[in-house]
Amino acid sequence: MKPDESHTVYGGKLFDVTIERWSDHEREIVEHPGAVAIVAVDRGDRVTLVRQLREPARKELLELPAGTLEEGEEPLATARRELAEETGLTGGSWRELAAFWTTPGFCRERMHVFVADGVEPGEARLEADEDIELVRVAVADLRAHVRELEDAKTIAGLLLYLEDRARTG
Amino acid sequence: MKPDESHTVYGGKLFDVTIERWSDHEREIVEHPGAVAIVAVDRGDRVTLVRQLREPARKELLELPAGTLEEGEEPLATARRELAEETGLTGGSWRELAAFWTTPGFCRERMHVFVADGVEPGEARLEADEDIELVRVAVADLRAHVRELEDAKTIAGLLLYLEDRARTG
Repeated sequence: MKPDESHTVYGGKLFDVTIERWSDHEREIVEHPGAVAIVAVDRGDRVTLVRQLREPARKELLELPAGTLEEGEEPLATARRELAEETGLTGGSWRELAAFWTTPGFCRERMHVFVADGVEPGEARLEADEDIELVRVAVADLRAHVRELEDAKTIAGLLLYLEDRARTG
Repeated sequence: MKPDESHTVYGGKLFDVTIERWSDHEREIVEHPGAVAIVAVDRGDRVTLVRQLREPARKELLELPAGTLEEGEEPLATARRELAEETGLTGGSWRELAAFWTTPGFCRERMHVFVADGVEPGEARLEADEDIELVRVAVADLRAHVRELEDAKTIAGLLLYLEDRARTG
């Protein structure tokens, strides 16, 4: 399925906005290259989450480590890079857990969620404008924590991870 | 927490874009009034999902019934209205299950997820540009279906609902 025509009405720094004309209607769309999030499990069976200011929410949120795809980059490569930069965690055995649209009514962002099992600690390499606190949660305590979370990809990613673990043992 | 200054750089039909200046950085933000999604459970213990074209995904997606908040409208009122319009379902016992940010890095959309228990069938009242197929899934089969879903709010909402049900019996 494709639109008949599309044109850019806003060119931004993080995203553009386009208007797509479909056969009988138009749609205003936030163009986004897609993103990744990582359920990183260390050898102590703990998941590392990140707490940071999210300006749209005007407060700090606790989330899975995540990042935006760069031009031409494979999601797995982005995920390994972002995890290392934000948390210092490297290595481990990786697989894609799920991929979903974050807001399919008006935005092109597709989110790929990876599991990295057995990651090892290291030194984070944050960019100048990043201020991130690391929070480690035991997998056994995740279910109790999920209800306090306020970020969709983190809730979906962690609950899918727990489902997957319950099913595969 | 609040920005020092904010100004609109794009005024759209569905959303605006603003630039917020915080103490040491700027942030480009999709302004969105917020939204609702509904886990509607009928007396046959089935959840009603909706399948529709999502232009940003360029395909049809299966999702919870949902809608955007109107100016000054309470989320519960929006949820009851949208559920009736999209599915014809009315009545039932309502509660808020969760609220989360769909993409807190760049968009102000906060999603309220409601559970409506014991809803009753009726006639949907779709708008001219809406083309929606209703899909009913037994609660007992939901867990098996969740892995096929590709919409974040639907995955998060349904898994939180199953968690809630497992806990409260």
